[in-house]
Amino acid sequence: MNRDELEQLQLEQLQSTLNRAYKNVPFYKKQFDLLGIDTSTLSSVQQIKDLPFTTRQDLANNYPYDLFAVPLRDIVRISPSAGTTAKPLVVGYTKGDLKARNTVTARFLAAGGVVDTDIVQICLNPGLSSWGRALKEGAENIGASVMPMTHMSTSKQLMAMKDYRTSVLLTTPSYAMHILEVIKDTNIETSNLALKAILVLGGPLDPDWRNRLERVLDISLTAGYGLSDVTAPGIGFECHEKNGLHISEDYFMLEIIDPGTGDVCLPGKYGEVVLTTLTARAFPLIRFRTGDLASIKDDLCPCGRSFVRISEITGHTGEVLTIAGVKVHPAQIEHILKTVSGKTPPRFLIRLYKENFLDMVEIWLEITETIFSDEVKLVENSLKHLRRQVFQMLGLEVSIRLVEASTIEQHDLPSGGVIDDR
Amino acid sequence: MNRDELEQLQLEQLQSTLNRAYKNVPFYKKQFDLLGIDTSTLSSVQQIKDLPFTTRQDLANNYPYDLFAVPLRDIVRISPSAGTTAKPLVVGYTKGDLKARNTVTARFLAAGGVVDTDIVQICLNPGLSSWGRALKEGAENIGASVMPMTHMSTSKQLMAMKDYRTSVLLTTPSYAMHILEVIKDTNIETSNLALKAILVLGGPLDPDWRNRLERVLDISLTAGYGLSDVTAPGIGFECHEKNGLHISEDYFMLEIIDPGTGDVCLPGKYGEVVLTTLTARAFPLIRFRTGDLASIKDDLCPCGRSFVRISEITGHTGEVLTIAGVKVHPAQIEHILKTVSGKTPPRFLIRLYKENFLDMVEIWLEITETIFSDEVKLVENSLKHLRRQVFQMLGLEVSIRLVEASTIEQHDLPSGGVIDDR
Repeated sequence: MNRDELEQLQLEQLQSTLNRAYKNVPFYKKQFDLLGIDTSTLSSVQQIKDLPFTTRQDLANNYPYDLFAVPLRDIVRISPSAGTTAKPLVVGYTKGDLKARNTVTARFLAAGGVVDTDIVQICLNPGLSSWGRALKEGAENIGASVMPMTHMSTSKQLMAMKDYRTSVLLTTPSYAMHILEVIKDTNIETSNLALKAILVLGGPLDPDWRNRLERVLDISLTAGYGLSDVTAPGIGFECHEKNGLHISEDYFMLEIIDPGTGDVCLPGKYGEVVLTTLTARAFPLIRFRTGDLASIKDDLCPCGRSFVRISEITGHTGEVLTIAGVKVHPAQIEHILKTVSGKTPPRFLIRLYKENFLDMVEIWLEITETIFSDEVKLVENSLKHLRRQVFQMLGLEVSIRLVEASTIEQHDLPSGGVIDDR
Repeated sequence: MNRDELEQLQLEQLQSTLNRAYKNVPFYKKQFDLLGIDTSTLSSVQQIKDLPFTTRQDLANNYPYDLFAVPLRDIVRISPSAGTTAKPLVVGYTKGDLKARNTVTARFLAAGGVVDTDIVQICLNPGLSSWGRALKEGAENIGASVMPMTHMSTSKQLMAMKDYRTSVLLTTPSYAMHILEVIKDTNIETSNLALKAILVLGGPLDPDWRNRLERVLDISLTAGYGLSDVTAPGIGFECHEKNGLHISEDYFMLEIIDPGTGDVCLPGKYGEVVLTTLTARAFPLIRFRTGDLASIKDDLCPCGRSFVRISEITGHTGEVLTIAGVKVHPAQIEHILKTVSGKTPPRFLIRLYKENFLDMVEIWLEITETIFSDEVKLVENSLKHLRRQVFQMLGLEVSIRLVEASTIEQHDLPSGGVIDDR
């Protein structure tokens, strides 16, 4: 498909998406009416820049069903995730939406080398179960043998990888590095592994990591881009050139905007990734602000694909953090603190660091009398309760560190601020 | 289907299962040859009692692929689970096997009242992800909207249940009771819930619990029977009579045997459930000893189904425990202790109890110098490490209690013994 054909396809799909959103989703009708937008006059994809943005807060405000564009009887899958607000984020899928998701996911997998004779092992943490399902279904679509996400220790995952002759591993970049460490520790001969490829998504990929994984394990590593709580993995995928992520532009329209002004950025300039769904029936999103930062690469890719490429995701706007692939907002931690203490939570900082390549989280809590009694036993119980709540809400194991007010002040950050030592 | 037709079907399927097992699985060939069994002479299903048993240890001994009866290229799903031995247990499925599993699972769901307009929510812990997938696929088979297993706190699950107007909940009996408690604590009006049915599996169902759940939530509760690490959920299912579990005898042949002598038990007598797969292509099991205890009810069920019924599972043979739906063998705890300490593990007891209806596990460790240094910091780290290992290996949160040798001796149990206070 050349760019002209692609733009024509995008225009038609965008028109029908806008019409359906206007007709079926009160949120969009209200927004369009307010701005005086007539969805029937759209004559070029460039006009998308006149449409309003959709934010994560809009998703939360319209919880539970208000952004669904089809009646509930047409929804076959309701996929909640902990989400980055106090409410769970929920995506709905029709049968057709799931088929489209599987196609896009299979495209990411195929570009990374997955074929029908492969044995594919999926290693993701429980917080990413929606991705796990999508990757399983995408790989089954290709006809591969799939070992789905399973709750097992890394050493058992490695045992299965060796004994079942896994040829493709699907995981996050940092878990791939962690596996490499465990391989060293357990003296597994890498020549005894049948691995030929690793596909990663859900976190930044250090070029050094890629080199090390490719060299030590003698595999080819390719990255993908997805949004765990909104749509599919494989929205973006590396081809064998490994020079940026192609966006599946027949399913998603891509823009990069200046997060401050909302203006569209020129190629090469970093900005916020904004996506518009082109085929979604159940849960159409128009100009969804992902919070992810990247830039467009506008040179032609030698692989021949006409889909535009973006750089690796280099960071996030505002305060949304990606920890072990899970998107977290400091306000969620504050919300949990409030729930546990039942009143004004103490000031806190979030410190992120790496241990054996895994993302670790430390919550620094200012010692105050509002939440902690001075009886040691009670403090211990509060902290245990807090740790458990964070784990239950976000799927993350955190450690809590009680610190003097002065420690927090030294860092000159507002409560909820983040010290990122990763 | 009347009993004669069913027996004829079973005989034909059993013959073909035995032939395939003999031809393709060296383990079965060796066993049959040793016992001089000629699989071609089978003329009645009753002759199944002359065949050898398959045990969990056999599964471990034939790890990884040796019990697979088809080449790997025909396997579309490889499903490992933590398993009840040091090695993961692995089930393989062909496309047809998955289809059969979905049919059996859908039958369990349909008997519990699930129809295509339902909104089905699956609440299971991460250790039961294989069941989660089967239930999701079974419910999608029926055409229901499915909210799959998701890592969220009980209160978020409840929020989703209320806001998404969940009509059917799939969970374990104890988690259903736990949800009831949380509903009370959070002051949710049960009349605001759209729940009409709860389907449970993976643990004993106290008749009191059933009454309470049905009365307070105004729902119908039905139970199912499955084996998390070997086959599907929905091997057995209650009909609306709720008087025992019908076994899907067109897919599984049922026997109840005396666990000591191996002799077949008469109806009404409790013994070990033994299952033979009748349709499995990838992973046929002949006379698999499940370790679950139940009895056959041989009166006709007023519902009209000809499938035989068994009682609720009343316990387990040997030492296999079912904790929060996960099958655990004390030897696994011993194995982890050995790994953590690097030498002879200390004596230990496992204490099980209930808290808010959830299964809790306490490991009592004899205080000894072989594993713990007397420096407090080191002891703490060892215990933390041990807890984390148990969680990673079994998906269970446990607490560790250090006890004097005399405490263990009082209970007069061997190391690895179980105090079940549930």
